[in-house]
Amino acid sequence: MNALTEPSLMEPRGSHLAASLPAALDRLLSALLERRWTTSASDRLTHGSDESSYLPCPPWGVAYPQSTDEVAQIVRLCSEHRVPVIPYGAGSSIEGHLLAVAGGVSIDLSRMSHVLAVRPEDLTATVQAGVTREALNAALSGTGFFFSVDPGANASIGGMVATSASGTNTVRYGTMRENTLSLTVVTADGRVVRTASRARKSSAGYCLTQLFAGSEGTLGIITEVTVRLHPVPEAIAAAVVTFPDTVSAVRCVMETIQLGTPLARAEMLDALTIRAINAYSGMTLQQAPTLFLEFCGSEASVAAQSELVAGIAAEHGGSDFAWATRPEERSRLWKPRHNALFAALQLRPGSKSLTTDICVPLSNLAQCIDETVQDIESSGLLAPVFGHVGDGNFHCLVLVDPNDATELQQAEQFSARLIDRAIRCDGTCTGEHGVGLHKKPYLVLEHGEDAVDLMRRIKRALDPHNILNPGKVVDVQVP
Amino acid sequence: MNALTEPSLMEPRGSHLAASLPAALDRLLSALLERRWTTSASDRLTHGSDESSYLPCPPWGVAYPQSTDEVAQIVRLCSEHRVPVIPYGAGSSIEGHLLAVAGGVSIDLSRMSHVLAVRPEDLTATVQAGVTREALNAALSGTGFFFSVDPGANASIGGMVATSASGTNTVRYGTMRENTLSLTVVTADGRVVRTASRARKSSAGYCLTQLFAGSEGTLGIITEVTVRLHPVPEAIAAAVVTFPDTVSAVRCVMETIQLGTPLARAEMLDALTIRAINAYSGMTLQQAPTLFLEFCGSEASVAAQSELVAGIAAEHGGSDFAWATRPEERSRLWKPRHNALFAALQLRPGSKSLTTDICVPLSNLAQCIDETVQDIESSGLLAPVFGHVGDGNFHCLVLVDPNDATELQQAEQFSARLIDRAIRCDGTCTGEHGVGLHKKPYLVLEHGEDAVDLMRRIKRALDPHNILNPGKVVDVQVP
Repeated sequence: MNALTEPSLMEPRGSHLAASLPAALDRLLSALLERRWTTSASDRLTHGSDESSYLPCPPWGVAYPQSTDEVAQIVRLCSEHRVPVIPYGAGSSIEGHLLAVAGGVSIDLSRMSHVLAVRPEDLTATVQAGVTREALNAALSGTGFFFSVDPGANASIGGMVATSASGTNTVRYGTMRENTLSLTVVTADGRVVRTASRARKSSAGYCLTQLFAGSEGTLGIITEVTVRLHPVPEAIAAAVVTFPDTVSAVRCVMETIQLGTPLARAEMLDALTIRAINAYSGMTLQQAPTLFLEFCGSEASVAAQSELVAGIAAEHGGSDFAWATRPEERSRLWKPRHNALFAALQLRPGSKSLTTDICVPLSNLAQCIDETVQDIESSGLLAPVFGHVGDGNFHCLVLVDPNDATELQQAEQFSARLIDRAIRCDGTCTGEHGVGLHKKPYLVLEHGEDAVDLMRRIKRALDPHNILNPGKVVDVQVP
Repeated sequence: MNALTEPSLMEPRGSHLAASLPAALDRLLSALLERRWTTSASDRLTHGSDESSYLPCPPWGVAYPQSTDEVAQIVRLCSEHRVPVIPYGAGSSIEGHLLAVAGGVSIDLSRMSHVLAVRPEDLTATVQAGVTREALNAALSGTGFFFSVDPGANASIGGMVATSASGTNTVRYGTMRENTLSLTVVTADGRVVRTASRARKSSAGYCLTQLFAGSEGTLGIITEVTVRLHPVPEAIAAAVVTFPDTVSAVRCVMETIQLGTPLARAEMLDALTIRAINAYSGMTLQQAPTLFLEFCGSEASVAAQSELVAGIAAEHGGSDFAWATRPEERSRLWKPRHNALFAALQLRPGSKSLTTDICVPLSNLAQCIDETVQDIESSGLLAPVFGHVGDGNFHCLVLVDPNDATELQQAEQFSARLIDRAIRCDGTCTGEHGVGLHKKPYLVLEHGEDAVDLMRRIKRALDPHNILNPGKVVDVQVP
């Protein structure tokens, strides 16, 4: 299968897209939710889009439940009418996850925004799925604990579980997967299931928590999440260091990790991204591959880590090693990294980004980035590169005019070559963004037909009428 | 459902236990494996037992494959004849996982004992499923890296994934689940599937790795495993400290964890276990709840951790804080913990242990242990208690005469009360041992009927003829 034989990036299609919402269902949802059910054009448009470069594909209506029980009632009604349901969190996904390619009802969980419990003694919190990561961390303020997963966007916790999100401090604290203890999920027939207890570990049957994590709303709708918390470290230090080339920067991170140094963050920006930041922020950073690092622990340990890494960086030609411990200085030092996405988009005002997301074993990372940067240069695309190099994960932001079909096709061809390269390195087509519509054609390439067949069997077993976010992750035929 | 309405502990039954191996299958397996296929009584007996107090339930024959391809061929032959297959690793499971309750073929993976790759740059290794954890660590000797999961027994890596095992240093390094990157699995119809790439993280479709982990051979047979490695720490320190009561010992560990101190191990032994050790090893340890701790990191960090914990312990009435950093001293200090299992069994020579395995949120642990020790005292059972208190997981070794039905029933009743108590605390019936035969009745109590229904659907989807270790984890009807 090939991405290019799929519906084009701009035109998701639902072959079984029905004409409209059944009138009876509309009446039932109105009766159930009153003004929290809408079929207004503007709400539908918002809920049929995400942060990808896909054109919108609106649902037939939008429901705003306030409880797990209401979600279950909505799903039961939709299930009876065989109408698709698409869970919607913060709208920040980027692979077409939210597009209503088969019509149906968008279930917007943003009003399920209560932090249900914070348990410092257990290092856990339980939240409704619509709570955003920033809201959770605000609720934790002053407790001495924080929620670690930071994918950049202020995503909803439910959405972060659903896509198995991660982000900058995964190298230290793990992905959303490792930070999720238990879920409450509404099944395809509207039953409410809790996937696990709050025990830190369990061997009690199949791990439903990790099956729903990363299933992108196609196996069930996540309504509550119990997450792990971490103690706020005593000390944090930030460092920035410039390298002559990508290989040197990546080798510096690899050696640091091999020595067991507990890096909290290890981000690399390529020269083009630095150029974008200089233009965007009026800075004069050296236009070269640059590492943004963070250390945490006790004050003594942070100082020792920083000294160690400065030494390793120097061995790899690193220069201009700058570091800071006070909050405002750390902020200033890391500001270019935080602005990278917006700065990159400003390299070409009006463009949208087709954002790649491969992840490879660390030993293959340097070469993979190198080949990719050469590919970008030879193909004439404009694509800043940056990523979570401690995890082997990096992104290319291919800046495209969303109305130029030729350009879009070139960007897709580049993405396909990049994914081929990642899979040859024994890596994955998506480290943290998920499959959605966009990565579906690559699942067989990555996992093989037999593994994808198992995924389809699971989908059919848990959603026999294919009403849960149909057309995403895997395609199945309804009998 | 109630454990006591299930087949008794000593008499696993297979209602659909066929009389014998189909002669045609016997001929085919002989032709395929020659002398690596046997129906000898002694081999069958060994492979129908585990470390539980169940009486043996032998398979019809034992196959010793040497490769994934051979496992696939065996499964295809068995699948055609609808004959059960039961994967066998090191035989160290303790919930009846290996008993051939429906007859069938035991697939002994011990000859698949090759370490296929060690990749220090990626912090991973790939092994055949029959490699034991000690063999893997021997192969890693001198590399500067180690494999962290230590369930006590010298289990096979495949078996450890299949039961989602963990052990003493989970509090620092995570369970087998978090240390498994990718699996090669033979499916019910004999296809070979690789569940994931070697990327450190991925969002590429449903997480098959975590679905097969903990599935106890009921969804597929794990033949190869890619695990994470960790750098050998620069310094390790061991400490032992005695407490006036269980609550104080547990509170000491909780506070240490809340401060973000990276404990490598945190084990508690109750007074009875200490009495057993004194008798077994001729020692004179104080008969009181005792913590065995381990710290690791840089030398400075280890010293700082140890000082911090000594202070916390003192606040909770801890006394006789002893610590050591040199390997031989650390060994000496921890020797009682390593001998705990054997010492405990010697409290009653000739007995077997019905070993419980609950795990609860940390905030409920002290009370749960306290109530359990009172229950033991009032029920007149002999049951040392010890566990991985940093994870909220502890074991009672209920010492029973395996030929005394009344005593076995009392032990089962105690176990049922303990599990009830754990589930009331929002914990699990099994933290690391798995379900096997023994915990099946408790899955509905823990997860609810709807969650177990999802597990059954997954089982039927992946093993429609119920040939993969039938009768374990969940019961399903074959159409």
